Amino acid sequence: MDAIKSYILRHGLRSGDRLPTESALCADLGVSRSSVREALRRLQALDIVTVRQGSGSYVGDMSMQPLVETLVLRAALDEINGVESLHSIVETRHALDLGIALPLTRAMTGTTNPRLWELVDAMATRAREGATYLDQDIAFHSGLLAYLDNALMHQLVAAMWLVHQSVTPQLAAASRQEMEDAADAHAAILRACEAGDPAAYAAAVDAHYAPLLAIIEGR
Amino acid sequence: MDAIKSYILRHGLRSGDRLPTESALCADLGVSRSSVREALRRLQALDIVTVRQGSGSYVGDMSMQPLVETLVLRAALDEINGVESLHSIVETRHALDLGIALPLTRAMTGTTNPRLWELVDAMATRAREGATYLDQDIAFHSGLLAYLDNALMHQLVAAMWLVHQSVTPQLAAASRQEMEDAADAHAAILRACEAGDPAAYAAAVDAHYAPLLAIIEGR
Repeated sequence: MDAIKSYILRHGLRSGDRLPTESALCADLGVSRSSVREALRRLQALDIVTVRQGSGSYVGDMSMQPLVETLVLRAALDEINGVESLHSIVETRHALDLGIALPLTRAMTGTTNPRLWELVDAMATRAREGATYLDQDIAFHSGLLAYLDNALMHQLVAAMWLVHQSVTPQLAAASRQEMEDAADAHAAILRACEAGDPAAYAAAVDAHYAPLLAIIEGR
Repeated sequence: MDAIKSYILRHGLRSGDRLPTESALCADLGVSRSSVREALRRLQALDIVTVRQGSGSYVGDMSMQPLVETLVLRAALDEINGVESLHSIVETRHALDLGIALPLTRAMTGTTNPRLWELVDAMATRAREGATYLDQDIAFHSGLLAYLDNALMHQLVAAMWLVHQSVTPQLAAASRQEMEDAADAHAAILRACEAGDPAAYAAAVDAHYAPLLAIIEGR
């Protein structure tokens, strides 16, 4: 695995670039064909390599997907003995959202965001109807993060949302009032961002996470 | 892979628990032996399964190690065309450290931390000698996070440090003055934590990251 990774590095290959054939890799790396094949399969599991049947191997996307799958499984296992993982995830998202108060409100000051306001309205409408709005919620936070130009943070938060999504059905449902409060908190977050007000933003973020943490902690 | 994951879930297995033999898995899941073997190898790459030669397969630690390896490779590849990944990592750590200001200073108010002060002193001494102190730096931040009881955050930060460590040698070196300032910032962070002062903590965190970001951004 290390030899193939080192090959990718030495040749400065990028995602989507073609890798040599198995036999060429054997010759180049001085290892057996079965070792190359097993290494490629393991690297495939990590999304470092993509194998297309009949076409060969390519450098993969190196996405967070493998992490997500592992976290989802761990969260599901923990579910049997509690909701520790979800608690960790929500606290981590809370910390990240608070921690970006300055750069985010700076980047968003004076912007207008009709698409994000539509999402806020949709959340409020669904909350009044007693429905949940996880998709809108995810799209909203992703829309804010897009202002930061930090791919890692974006991927981490997306990974945490996927775990969140997979665990949420097993949780006690939020009340209609809590859903409406959370929808309002999103409006307050967006208002603070557009006004460039980090203190108001931090207060709205705290208001956003408080009911969620209460539900996870079993109230 | 999904069938084996589902087996782990259905039986509520924990890290270190033994999995059935390959032939028992074939029978239980109704798939071929070669499919079971390949799935186990891929799950091994994800640290969901551990295979001990001659002893069988066990449920793995589901650690962040696979993520770390992928991030390290991606960071190293980006290094060829810039230091985007390291920049993302340092900004993400900065955001997390700021975001935990309240719970961390609350948890640490009134505590005494001789081991962390020793690390601060070691950093200051090494800075005066013109040496670096990455190990002490990592141990210091890990010691703070230990107060939070959030395994995910701990693992994420550890993963980011490993990438950081692998990329740092390729960066322009910090000046002796910058290393001394950064050592002082660690003392200020610890002082603020023990005093339970979130505002002083946030200011010290900003002072800690400013020189690092300057170096990464090429000053």
